[in-house]
Amino acid sequence: MTTTALVTPAAELVARRVPGRSLEAPFYVGEEFFALDIEAVFARSWIFAATEAEVPEPGDYVTVTVGPYSVIVVRDDDEEVRAFHNVCRHRGARILNEPRGSVGTIVCGYHHWTYGVDGRLLHAASQEPGFDPTCFGLRTVQVRAVAGLVFLCLADRPPADFDDFAAQVTPYLAPHRLRHAKVARQVDLIEHANWKLTMENNRECYHCAGHPELQRCYFPLYNFAEGDVPPALRPTYERFLQADAAARAAFESLGLPYAAVEDLVERPTGFRVEREPLDLAGESFTEDGKAAVRRLLADFPTARLGHLGLHLQPNAWFHCAADHAVTFSVIPLAADRTLVRTTWLVHADAEEGVDYDLDALTNVWEVTNEQDAVFVARAQAGIGDPAYVPGPYSPTESQVEDFVRWYINRLSAYLQEGP
Amino acid sequence: MTTTALVTPAAELVARRVPGRSLEAPFYVGEEFFALDIEAVFARSWIFAATEAEVPEPGDYVTVTVGPYSVIVVRDDDEEVRAFHNVCRHRGARILNEPRGSVGTIVCGYHHWTYGVDGRLLHAASQEPGFDPTCFGLRTVQVRAVAGLVFLCLADRPPADFDDFAAQVTPYLAPHRLRHAKVARQVDLIEHANWKLTMENNRECYHCAGHPELQRCYFPLYNFAEGDVPPALRPTYERFLQADAAARAAFESLGLPYAAVEDLVERPTGFRVEREPLDLAGESFTEDGKAAVRRLLADFPTARLGHLGLHLQPNAWFHCAADHAVTFSVIPLAADRTLVRTTWLVHADAEEGVDYDLDALTNVWEVTNEQDAVFVARAQAGIGDPAYVPGPYSPTESQVEDFVRWYINRLSAYLQEGP
Amino acid sequence: MTTTALVTPAAELVARRVPGRSLEAPFYVGEEFFALDIEAVFARSWIFAATEAEVPEPGDYVTVTVGPYSVIVVRDDDEEVRAFHNVCRHRGARILNEPRGSVGTIVCGYHHWTYGVDGRLLHAASQEPGFDPTCFGLRTVQVRAVAGLVFLCLADRPPADFDDFAAQVTPYLAPHRLRHAKVARQVDLIEHANWKLTMENNRECYHCAGHPELQRCYFPLYNFAEGDVPPALRPTYERFLQADAAARAAFESLGLPYAAVEDLVERPTGFRVEREPLDLAGESFTEDGKAAVRRLLADFPTARLGHLGLHLQPNAWFHCAADHAVTFSVIPLAADRTLVRTTWLVHADAEEGVDYDLDALTNVWEVTNEQDAVFVARAQAGIGDPAYVPGPYSPTESQVEDFVRWYINRLSAYLQEGP
Repeated sequence: MTTTALVTPAAELVARRVPGRSLEAPFYVGEEFFALDIEAVFARSWIFAATEAEVPEPGDYVTVTVGPYSVIVVRDDDEEVRAFHNVCRHRGARILNEPRGSVGTIVCGYHHWTYGVDGRLLHAASQEPGFDPTCFGLRTVQVRAVAGLVFLCLADRPPADFDDFAAQVTPYLAPHRLRHAKVARQVDLIEHANWKLTMENNRECYHCAGHPELQRCYFPLYNFAEGDVPPALRPTYERFLQADAAARAAFESLGLPYAAVEDLVERPTGFRVEREPLDLAGESFTEDGKAAVRRLLADFPTARLGHLGLHLQPNAWFHCAADHAVTFSVIPLAADRTLVRTTWLVHADAEEGVDYDLDALTNVWEVTNEQDAVFVARAQAGIGDPAYVPGPYSPTESQVEDFVRWYINRLSAYLQEGP
Repeated sequence: MTTTALVTPAAELVARRVPGRSLEAPFYVGEEFFALDIEAVFARSWIFAATEAEVPEPGDYVTVTVGPYSVIVVRDDDEEVRAFHNVCRHRGARILNEPRGSVGTIVCGYHHWTYGVDGRLLHAASQEPGFDPTCFGLRTVQVRAVAGLVFLCLADRPPADFDDFAAQVTPYLAPHRLRHAKVARQVDLIEHANWKLTMENNRECYHCAGHPELQRCYFPLYNFAEGDVPPALRPTYERFLQADAAARAAFESLGLPYAAVEDLVERPTGFRVEREPLDLAGESFTEDGKAAVRRLLADFPTARLGHLGLHLQPNAWFHCAADHAVTFSVIPLAADRTLVRTTWLVHADAEEGVDYDLDALTNVWEVTNEQDAVFVARAQAGIGDPAYVPGPYSPTESQVEDFVRWYINRLSAYLQEGP
Repeated sequence: MTTTALVTPAAELVARRVPGRSLEAPFYVGEEFFALDIEAVFARSWIFAATEAEVPEPGDYVTVTVGPYSVIVVRDDDEEVRAFHNVCRHRGARILNEPRGSVGTIVCGYHHWTYGVDGRLLHAASQEPGFDPTCFGLRTVQVRAVAGLVFLCLADRPPADFDDFAAQVTPYLAPHRLRHAKVARQVDLIEHANWKLTMENNRECYHCAGHPELQRCYFPLYNFAEGDVPPALRPTYERFLQADAAARAAFESLGLPYAAVEDLVERPTGFRVEREPLDLAGESFTEDGKAAVRRLLADFPTARLGHLGLHLQPNAWFHCAADHAVTFSVIPLAADRTLVRTTWLVHADAEEGVDYDLDALTNVWEVTNEQDAVFVARAQAGIGDPAYVPGPYSPTESQVEDFVRWYINRLSAYLQEGP
């Protein structure tokens, strides 16, 4: 909190960022910096929008919010996934006002301008003879589907490295058959924190003591080198080493790629993917580590294959076990408000109450998300205090540092190139 | 949504406005542009504030909000309507905090400074001997009553064209005897949209398919040339032509002025007035088109005389049928929040439950207002999306274009002249 | 409400302030001026934070909010009161998230960094060998306890006049033995007004006709010269003169200091202290003026000793009667929102339901606070109206003028010296 004359420009804050320390407060507060994040990061990056399972049939759509943008993701009559800005070309009304649904044509409710699911303007009543409907189709948004996950980019010229990202992660994702999944549950949680705090929180397990349910099945040692393991976690670490060796043998016998591929800092489409063991029964994110869904989603001969973790910057992470997958998308709403959308996918033919108990399937990540919401809200509150000074990351938080470096790179590029 | 450095100045936005297309987004979003609208438009124009029926007796008052202003409209002891800023001359407290009431004197509740209904400071306790109460009367607001409608202007030098406006509309309004009316109901509806979207929505019937109740009694062809009538409305149009011919004959036989008088673009007090037929029974805004009030308000020998439509820029419209009149005032609250106040007037001696059923009287416009609130909220949402680009008005929306041109003229004048 | 280009700089507003008149509107509205107040006034002054009675034992703490700051006030193991910024030195999380409690160590819930109640960092897991915990203790806040009241200053170099303030008020406060008190009730009230309106309202009794409960026991003549007394208060004034003479004799016989000490304008730690009689039974702030607590808090042989009034700028006032004391702290939350925290203190051994009835003890100030909240909200509303112009203070409002002059002095000093 300071007088306007003292506000430090974004470029200076970017330039003076101290490696190894958390970012200065202005990055997390104020609607101007938030607008910069939307423009420089969210409107220029490939972001995770939805799963193909949410739009299984032609005409099925979801509306996806990205800061001030709303995007229609719809399956067209050729079964391709398309994306359009959710803004009528007449006088700008928001066209589709529900989070999801199914349509034959896309009709604006205000003056009934009618578009095809391919975006073409099909009808606009009472126009002058010279009116050319081909000039008023819905504005398209770049969209790509990879192994059942739908990504979009709001920029006209999206980052060119997406093909490489897709090529690298597809072998990891393909066996999970996400295209053959259905949505078992979707939960929207609003966190009272800047979106970067949500992402940073996801990048470290230094806080995992705050997740008692998760750390039963998930080894709370993410990114811990042996020297980082505190005494209290030593038995867990020993168990991890055993599970890891067994899992690697299993992955190799099945030809499942598992090694970490990580390119988090330099490329626009920063990502990390790795297959790892789980604790307890080693099958899934459940109280006892056993599969929550009897009918497996993945093309696996056994459920005891740990999980595939995928992280995408700026806005998503994924956990795929044998029996189900969970996707997390992070949508900035305001400088201090962020939507975390969590989607549980199971085999399209799995039957709730028969093949799985919905609460048992979702409980671990639901409570974990709620715990994280408390943590990041406290971080937001403290960072907004004028007494805050950036502090040092622990070695176990090196992927937070990676995320922050990636973010600073994105801002730098934008500030140099201009909009 | 953009970084501050990229915000386009108002003067440039005004200068580059493209005729025939909706306005660019900045006109509708952001508190700075909202403040400009209040200063340049609302604080300089004649605006509709209330009906005389709301202040029938000396001492009766209403408080009227206009953006950040609050105005007391009060009938004084000589039965004249007066208006004052609702701000104590001592330390600035809001004096009257209820929407309406009746007073002998106007007393500030904080330190009991007491003013007459003529605005003079009558009493302020414990002052020094030299204190001169004549220096601390309530600040007056320009006010004019026309045929039972009360207009005010916050500027010290209000637009000079009001007399002409009054002279032109009085012959149309006088037969409706609004000064002899009482308020049957008043409804305040908050629309989540900029005030201009509320006004623009009122200026066209291109969206009237969204008003199933209204379009039963009201021909949904407002401002449609014959060539604009879509096939589905062709039968309605034929019915309109017949009703229109019959109505004109009736208006003429009674000496009622009915021709459209329209001066919406150039003058400060932009307005339009016209008498037109209604559908079905042709008498009123009801489900079957029949009068809702047995005792007519207008000085008419029959109820089947359609309605008088009056539109005033920046903030009002009126529908007067034989049996009742409805006034609509539009009060900006924030860039994206607007109060629409609707007031139904009936004959002062009409008795609820005997002469009229209140719900039957008000239903058509209540549901229509609620439908409009949905439409304009969607417009606001979409216009705030960075993907919005101004689109073309249909020929039937030419009065939207007129309103927008008037608005741009008002801004231009203000930006050239300064405050 | 005006366009940005027309916003008057703070320095110009300070320079052109007209003595004897209320401040111009910008001082009370807008988040920029609010931020200036926090920086120039609240972050540089000694402010009243809590009573020692709220932290009686080692490890007891309260968290105190001051604008965007949160401060931990904690009693350490040597029974000294200490204060720290409530921000973790790791990644900035808010550490203590409850208004009060008791701790052995201060543990951040996010990554379990652990601090002593002396602020030292005791533990941070999984750090590199070179990590030096002595660099990451909690940031200290200046704190002083005076006669049971806890004051803090957020500046590194707090105003030097605090010792003199403490020396002058201690003889007045000491007999009330606030260090031996307990909290009977604490009420947080959010007023919808700028903090200065809350303080100004406290500085005058010109509005006391709006406090029917208070003015039964409290002479509503604060700062009235004889010539200011209006006819209706003449009998009250005569009663006051008698009570005042009797009280002075009693104060003198007991050696209680009572004369007003006032230094409200020039010094950073502006204050005023005075002992005065009360009306009716003359003992306390109750319906009949009788003591509300059978066991007296003060070291007095009788309850009939009026009250000690202490006022501290920028944010507090106090009323100490024989049987109890009440503290009021004013915490700015936003330009138009202010927290008033009222705390009733009674003897530590007084037993609720036996020695006192809690509602009888607190009723007068609870209803008075609520009445004041209405008054200041109306002032805020009217001052935000563009029609507001500063008006004249009555002679009885001279301490409002003193407060405003002090405030203007504080802003001037800040604007000259810079942050």
